[in-house]
Amino acid sequence: MAGTPTFATPPGFLGLAQQSRDGITRQGRGAAFCIAGVPLDIGTTNRAGTRDGPAAIRRASRMLVDGVHPQHWTDPRNLDIADIGDFAIALGDIPASLDLIERQAAECGHLVTLGGEHLVTLPLLRALAKRLGGPLGLLHMDAHVDTWETNFGQSLAHGSVFFHAIREGLVEPRRMIQLGIRSPVDRETWDWTLGQGVTVVTAQEAHESSPPALAARVRAVLGDGPCYLSFDIDALDPAFAPGTGTPEVGGLASWQAQGILRRLGGLAWAGMDLVEVSPAYDQAEITALAGATMAWEYLALLAGP
Amino acid sequence: MAGTPTFATPPGFLGLAQQSRDGITRQGRGAAFCIAGVPLDIGTTNRAGTRDGPAAIRRASRMLVDGVHPQHWTDPRNLDIADIGDFAIALGDIPASLDLIERQAAECGHLVTLGGEHLVTLPLLRALAKRLGGPLGLLHMDAHVDTWETNFGQSLAHGSVFFHAIREGLVEPRRMIQLGIRSPVDRETWDWTLGQGVTVVTAQEAHESSPPALAARVRAVLGDGPCYLSFDIDALDPAFAPGTGTPEVGGLASWQAQGILRRLGGLAWAGMDLVEVSPAYDQAEITALAGATMAWEYLALLAGP
Amino acid sequence: MAGTPTFATPPGFLGLAQQSRDGITRQGRGAAFCIAGVPLDIGTTNRAGTRDGPAAIRRASRMLVDGVHPQHWTDPRNLDIADIGDFAIALGDIPASLDLIERQAAECGHLVTLGGEHLVTLPLLRALAKRLGGPLGLLHMDAHVDTWETNFGQSLAHGSVFFHAIREGLVEPRRMIQLGIRSPVDRETWDWTLGQGVTVVTAQEAHESSPPALAARVRAVLGDGPCYLSFDIDALDPAFAPGTGTPEVGGLASWQAQGILRRLGGLAWAGMDLVEVSPAYDQAEITALAGATMAWEYLALLAGP
Amino acid sequence: MAGTPTFATPPGFLGLAQQSRDGITRQGRGAAFCIAGVPLDIGTTNRAGTRDGPAAIRRASRMLVDGVHPQHWTDPRNLDIADIGDFAIALGDIPASLDLIERQAAECGHLVTLGGEHLVTLPLLRALAKRLGGPLGLLHMDAHVDTWETNFGQSLAHGSVFFHAIREGLVEPRRMIQLGIRSPVDRETWDWTLGQGVTVVTAQEAHESSPPALAARVRAVLGDGPCYLSFDIDALDPAFAPGTGTPEVGGLASWQAQGILRRLGGLAWAGMDLVEVSPAYDQAEITALAGATMAWEYLALLAGP
Amino acid sequence: MAGTPTFATPPGFLGLAQQSRDGITRQGRGAAFCIAGVPLDIGTTNRAGTRDGPAAIRRASRMLVDGVHPQHWTDPRNLDIADIGDFAIALGDIPASLDLIERQAAECGHLVTLGGEHLVTLPLLRALAKRLGGPLGLLHMDAHVDTWETNFGQSLAHGSVFFHAIREGLVEPRRMIQLGIRSPVDRETWDWTLGQGVTVVTAQEAHESSPPALAARVRAVLGDGPCYLSFDIDALDPAFAPGTGTPEVGGLASWQAQGILRRLGGLAWAGMDLVEVSPAYDQAEITALAGATMAWEYLALLAGP
Amino acid sequence: MAGTPTFATPPGFLGLAQQSRDGITRQGRGAAFCIAGVPLDIGTTNRAGTRDGPAAIRRASRMLVDGVHPQHWTDPRNLDIADIGDFAIALGDIPASLDLIERQAAECGHLVTLGGEHLVTLPLLRALAKRLGGPLGLLHMDAHVDTWETNFGQSLAHGSVFFHAIREGLVEPRRMIQLGIRSPVDRETWDWTLGQGVTVVTAQEAHESSPPALAARVRAVLGDGPCYLSFDIDALDPAFAPGTGTPEVGGLASWQAQGILRRLGGLAWAGMDLVEVSPAYDQAEITALAGATMAWEYLALLAGP
Repeated sequence: MAGTPTFATPPGFLGLAQQSRDGITRQGRGAAFCIAGVPLDIGTTNRAGTRDGPAAIRRASRMLVDGVHPQHWTDPRNLDIADIGDFAIALGDIPASLDLIERQAAECGHLVTLGGEHLVTLPLLRALAKRLGGPLGLLHMDAHVDTWETNFGQSLAHGSVFFHAIREGLVEPRRMIQLGIRSPVDRETWDWTLGQGVTVVTAQEAHESSPPALAARVRAVLGDGPCYLSFDIDALDPAFAPGTGTPEVGGLASWQAQGILRRLGGLAWAGMDLVEVSPAYDQAEITALAGATMAWEYLALLAGP
Repeated sequence: MAGTPTFATPPGFLGLAQQSRDGITRQGRGAAFCIAGVPLDIGTTNRAGTRDGPAAIRRASRMLVDGVHPQHWTDPRNLDIADIGDFAIALGDIPASLDLIERQAAECGHLVTLGGEHLVTLPLLRALAKRLGGPLGLLHMDAHVDTWETNFGQSLAHGSVFFHAIREGLVEPRRMIQLGIRSPVDRETWDWTLGQGVTVVTAQEAHESSPPALAARVRAVLGDGPCYLSFDIDALDPAFAPGTGTPEVGGLASWQAQGILRRLGGLAWAGMDLVEVSPAYDQAEITALAGATMAWEYLALLAGP
Repeated sequence: MAGTPTFATPPGFLGLAQQSRDGITRQGRGAAFCIAGVPLDIGTTNRAGTRDGPAAIRRASRMLVDGVHPQHWTDPRNLDIADIGDFAIALGDIPASLDLIERQAAECGHLVTLGGEHLVTLPLLRALAKRLGGPLGLLHMDAHVDTWETNFGQSLAHGSVFFHAIREGLVEPRRMIQLGIRSPVDRETWDWTLGQGVTVVTAQEAHESSPPALAARVRAVLGDGPCYLSFDIDALDPAFAPGTGTPEVGGLASWQAQGILRRLGGLAWAGMDLVEVSPAYDQAEITALAGATMAWEYLALLAGP
Repeated sequence: MAGTPTFATPPGFLGLAQQSRDGITRQGRGAAFCIAGVPLDIGTTNRAGTRDGPAAIRRASRMLVDGVHPQHWTDPRNLDIADIGDFAIALGDIPASLDLIERQAAECGHLVTLGGEHLVTLPLLRALAKRLGGPLGLLHMDAHVDTWETNFGQSLAHGSVFFHAIREGLVEPRRMIQLGIRSPVDRETWDWTLGQGVTVVTAQEAHESSPPALAARVRAVLGDGPCYLSFDIDALDPAFAPGTGTPEVGGLASWQAQGILRRLGGLAWAGMDLVEVSPAYDQAEITALAGATMAWEYLALLAGP
Repeated sequence: MAGTPTFATPPGFLGLAQQSRDGITRQGRGAAFCIAGVPLDIGTTNRAGTRDGPAAIRRASRMLVDGVHPQHWTDPRNLDIADIGDFAIALGDIPASLDLIERQAAECGHLVTLGGEHLVTLPLLRALAKRLGGPLGLLHMDAHVDTWETNFGQSLAHGSVFFHAIREGLVEPRRMIQLGIRSPVDRETWDWTLGQGVTVVTAQEAHESSPPALAARVRAVLGDGPCYLSFDIDALDPAFAPGTGTPEVGGLASWQAQGILRRLGGLAWAGMDLVEVSPAYDQAEITALAGATMAWEYLALLAGP
Repeated sequence: MAGTPTFATPPGFLGLAQQSRDGITRQGRGAAFCIAGVPLDIGTTNRAGTRDGPAAIRRASRMLVDGVHPQHWTDPRNLDIADIGDFAIALGDIPASLDLIERQAAECGHLVTLGGEHLVTLPLLRALAKRLGGPLGLLHMDAHVDTWETNFGQSLAHGSVFFHAIREGLVEPRRMIQLGIRSPVDRETWDWTLGQGVTVVTAQEAHESSPPALAARVRAVLGDGPCYLSFDIDALDPAFAPGTGTPEVGGLASWQAQGILRRLGGLAWAGMDLVEVSPAYDQAEITALAGATMAWEYLALLAGP
């Protein structure tokens, strides 16, 4: 270990300098990989507070700075990478916020986004599908299918993000796999999701399978095309991730999520988000650290030594 | 002490049965005094979570059930009073939520509202001014003037509620007094507020004065006309009310707020709200209890023995 | 998702209206399935606070309202079910409280009880065995055998509940299985328990087995007769259920408990209790949610679509 | 500062060796001043957990070891003083526990007791009045009058302690003063208390008075006879003492309590208890430290340099 | 309000860009006013954790960005000011850390330092006295005199900082005033302190005085020469500042500290530190916010509009 | 269950009387097995606070007193065992503290040490290797290899303890096995560790193996010679042990650690330490209880019935 002690690591993700808003305009476009926070949280349906997720995840990520990934032997900081700060949002206005997020995402390279609520994935996918000229494959780690047509009457909400993404052709349902699903759900939404061709792996199925088998299944679904990872922290059990708004009992252990992610190298990854960390409900930063670690696992797949 | 032990008190405010949504329609209009929760919190600018305020305040109010007010010797439960549950809101849509709140408020009698964020005061005042046919006097307990024209670009936000209330003629500025003010503020907003005729008493002034003197000043400003109490829990110091979104150091002790409120009997009170309790940041329910107590103090002013 | 947002779900279990004490008298007998809280907690031996369990479990259960069970495709709210509030207890008086609980239980249909400490199971079993005219089979999820003859000199205590239940002939020891056991224990109590014919599965055995095998074992022990589920939340590991009074390291994950319960349909279930949730030690409601979920899993076994 | 660092101070009160139960029998009688914990908490009516009060207060008292009292220039550790550990109680049995406490108290010298709930004061006063051969004067710091005839039907409960003490002639009502009172109360209990001759000073009165004036009033009431201090930590405001079971808003600041106590030297003090600290609701030990400090203030009145 | 919402304020103090370590070298010397964190915390004697103080204070300071000081009508961000990040320290080595801190301080302009423990004041005063060519006047807000010759055998510790400062001639004792003092202390240390000419105002004296009188006393002691403010957050009562290592009951309210500081304009301020914030013991950031506010009050004294 | 209720268990480890410092001198040498706390925590690199570990672990161990080990049917209290209190350390001085620890350890019998940070293992091994006249085998449970040559420039730090232990010949690398490893690490340190002959089992490997297989591997590495167990609580996942300074996601469940330890009887155990419990970050004592349990598991291997 050398340099700055862990506790004094600068506040950006992985100790990178966190750029100011002006920095986004000037520097964001330059870096091949961009970390951005998106503190939107007004489309949620239970506990609030994911607006504070980006700051907490960045702070927790100081644990991941001293050394390289102990299995891939790579270091995300070797990428051409910048922490471009938080995206601007429109306070209290979901549609305007989604537009803003999409526009800012369009200016960036390969994005790893720190939420904020899950709804932020929608404009991120819009920007990405537009750039790539077609739909993406999707690994969706979550306790919830998030394919409800509305959430208590609200169309643009964190439980409807993939309803819209599928409807808008941003993701290719046959190349979409959901992992960790376990919340109560109405039968119509469930059937619609399967009917679109989405692969759903419940948490119980995951627990009775194994990371290698699950990773193989993910690889088979995602195939060779460009793909995206959307990681809702509530895919993990509340024991591992108490700091979230819609916890569901019976979820994954963080080692299981890592065991899967580490076997997903070589796919055509085009972006990732880590959403729904709500620090006010966290204990000793364990949820924020789990979130930071999942983003680091993703980046370590892509980084060279 | 008789009846149900404190810890098993039913969940409605002061142990009243909390009516379901259908109950609001059927029964709310009947009671002279209505307690309603308004779990709107998407117009806030710092920490989130006041959506959980109504449930926490109701739960904390169990401490106030066993006996009568020890100074007024009155009991709010002697009023014709009902806990009509939470108002419906439109998830993720501030303007639609404000409309819904106003419409539901219009159906009720004398309302004591448990927030939710401060923005909920706006539709409550709209409904009340409409019913009364004119503007209200206002006692505004808060750390913030809440007369910003916008909040970071957002017009309908918790820091702009009294800008709108004044502009819309819902309150009469010369009969409006703010107490506990201490946040940073831009000079334009400050001057606009004073220029409207509003009386502003900073927290420092309050600390160097006394409850009797402050109450006298409030009485002088409010006069004889109908008046309203809007109590933002952040009027209290963070030591007394940590569970809130925009805490400011140097605020009132809860005994000071009580010492003032207890001297405000005999005024033409037309309604009250208690806003900005955010339970995720609370400790041992002290903020929720402070909020419940302030609403109970208000009701005790109005109740007979 | 439709109707009330999760965070504004009314405070009764699964969003059912929580009846007042008078309601118990009038309505409780009517419903086929009754949810009742029993806030007794004065017979405990380590940390206190399960008196607040019923309120916390009800509040946490709001997460389980929006949709049906994702494996059984049933919905407990389709049952003829009522949340009849909390049973009256005699403050500070264990024997009188047990009498009161038994009498109130005798007036109800199929009961799902939210504790409170584990001692409440004793009068519940007394009422049930009396109604059924004979002993019950028992699935006992716990870290502790709870068959001590006394607890530090106290006969009626949470660690002696099944000593009494066996002695009084309320349960049939050969149809009784304990799952998750791992606390220190004296050899006499252990041998007495096995000597009665009880099947004991330690947490270590459970971890090295699997939910399907464990469920098969439970089914074999319980057989065809009427049976009861007594779920002490400390069966789960402290990571999954910190909010309890006598935590023991090395317990079950909540997914394991769910994996077992979900395979226990078709048995002659006659009642359930979920005990020992102590909210003062909980974090972000994870223990209360685990408790609510276990009760929901039980009800989902019994509910039609 | 010399010797052991604060954080490594041994676990007894003020760093004294905490004697084991056997130690009580052997050594307790010997010391002129005895510190004893009384972890009884089953007679409470709202939040639980004062059984853990003695351990927490002892741990917090490490802050008071390094140096002498900065106003009296005395050191309690110069007294002939022992921490005799916790009194035995009868689990789940209030009357038997009260008997046990009285018997153990009778064997000790000048007792400073760490609760536990307020009901423990009753047997302590019984033992003391018996030894002194007559009733005591009483300074009762509390948010509650604690003179209810019953608590929700329970006669031996923490809110009835002084009803019994007065009825049993343990205290002399005209030499009894209550300070900090502010909870809701029924008029009958209030009138009965005043009718007995008790002096009641509400928290609002205390806030609008001053420590010197309050101390003078206490001295006038207590007079020259033997007197006792019963300090319920909820006399302090929840901001200063969140870790308690029945918090009431508007209470004393800890400096006010200190300002009063420090002016009460030279009275014929015969014993003290510090009750109702419930560590599960505490934050950063501030309640436990306030409790430890009040006991230290009391002892510093009595100690020589 | 305009610009970035409060919750998305960049992580530096008052929303200033926090410079990286390299930034210190390059830019620190340039700014007239420098904010620096000093995460040293290994010289403490009770609870640990002030190493995390700088990050927490910076994060909490986001509340102070939107608007100007509501009494002075000045804005610290109008100063030529930079947040130069955290000073390098030598892990586990106090003397080497003090040297490092002194050297880095020597390179900076007017420093406002965020601790870290109180020992950091020593090298800051060394650097400053060297630059100014003579001793400073000192306003020392604290619960402890911090003039012990050693701390449990340790010479360089947080309780000995002003023993050394006086001995080394860094401060002028007759121009030194301590405010808020209340911890136990040995008579020798107390007498030595007074004997040096230091003015000591205990917390009890402060409570029975008033901010204007206290401020006048401070001005009289400090006089016209260059002076320094060392603010240990434990000067505040644990209710207002639970997040600290050596809390003492009976301390100042934050409004009192503000009421004093606001009356200290026009003095020859040469630097300030805010020390002993330990976030692990904080609740809802109230201690960190109190710390940030005191630094902002200081800067607002110096800033133009 | 008999004797003292769990909550009133005396504060020493497993309810043993905790001896005072003087007691160490007099009695420590006498007992065959000694429990000692070592509250050193100034060599850490991220979150602080393990100085409070010994007190918290002792308090949590009250859960393990009532009964014997439910698999080995042994009771550590049957050993000739004493809780000799905390070792003296030199505040703020790492080298002097290590000397002090070594000297105190040399006076004791078979030591089970409660940290404190991991660096304390170094002087413990020095004392032990000296007594045994040669190097030890080592089972090292941890998230980190702790074989860094320096930690951010610091040689004597918690991440370098086994670098020194190997270099000094205190452990025999070919008889050393690390289990639970998962932090980022630089390749040089990793290769050096393997190059010394150390067996490293990552957490991912452990999760995909099983306790019996892992225990077999440990036995094979440790062989017949004297061996030592160094258990860093961060070997466990943050869900199971949030209360620690350098948490890493993906760790062991506590049942896995127990499943391994229970299969390690019959080896030539010569000592154990349990380090890095930081109570300020704990929730409901779960980390302290996990730590206490691991020490109890170790002792239960050695105890007779």
